[in-house]
Amino acid sequence: MSNSDCIFCSIATGKIPCIRIWQDDLVLAFLDIGPVSDGHTLVIPKAHFGRLHECSPDVLVGISNCIGKICQAVVSAVGAEAYNVLCNNGIAAGQLVEHVHFHIIPRNSGDGVFGRWPAYKYQQGRAEEIAARIREKI
Amino acid sequence: MSNSDCIFCSIATGKIPCIRIWQDDLVLAFLDIGPVSDGHTLVIPKAHFGRLHECSPDVLVGISNCIGKICQAVVSAVGAEAYNVLCNNGIAAGQLVEHVHFHIIPRNSGDGVFGRWPAYKYQQGRAEEIAARIREKI
Repeated sequence: MSNSDCIFCSIATGKIPCIRIWQDDLVLAFLDIGPVSDGHTLVIPKAHFGRLHECSPDVLVGISNCIGKICQAVVSAVGAEAYNVLCNNGIAAGQLVEHVHFHIIPRNSGDGVFGRWPAYKYQQGRAEEIAARIREKI
Repeated sequence: MSNSDCIFCSIATGKIPCIRIWQDDLVLAFLDIGPVSDGHTLVIPKAHFGRLHECSPDVLVGISNCIGKICQAVVSAVGAEAYNVLCNNGIAAGQLVEHVHFHIIPRNSGDGVFGRWPAYKYQQGRAEEIAARIREKI
């Protein structure tokens, strides 16, 4: 369940140090050493899973059981107004370490952490066509 | 458990239509009508919770149980390389509807959906100080 080439597995087993926030049998939370805001925290399963959709059910339940209280503690400790929870899956989505991790990112009005939200509208009929394709895959 | 002023509650109860991807007793997934990439999907609890840390355990487990398969179906249907799962909590974090929702955002190399990742380094001792404050709050 541990991958010797994975830096987050090495952090989970204690071979590489981290600034720990919290842990239980399944989950570890520690500060991101390259934060985008003060208190930026990573929540990982201790076992190795590359992507969110590859995680075992017990691991996702384990993360579900603790992530809310970790978010509250992070936001309270740094006095933030808000927070993002972000899980990047795949290099094209910005995942730099191939061990699934949830970023908890404290936010404040006008902090400019993420500058844009490039929303657009679908052409007529396009959304229904895409939705039908997705439903076929589930 | 439903809030009459909430657009996502109205979508969950069927009062406002959506382009549905999937549902069970607890969870509904539908296309975001203002996508940042084709197939951009929202996953919501049917019951009203404002923020991730306010969700009941059964709702988070319910989302955990389906989100992986929805991500896979979305990515497969649109032929994406990768995906983000993002939950914005609070206006300062970009939450526009005050009913907790997870964005599933298909991604491809160089798509420029989210342009920057403004990471920095902590000054000496600062990370340890913040971590101690967070641990006190848990």
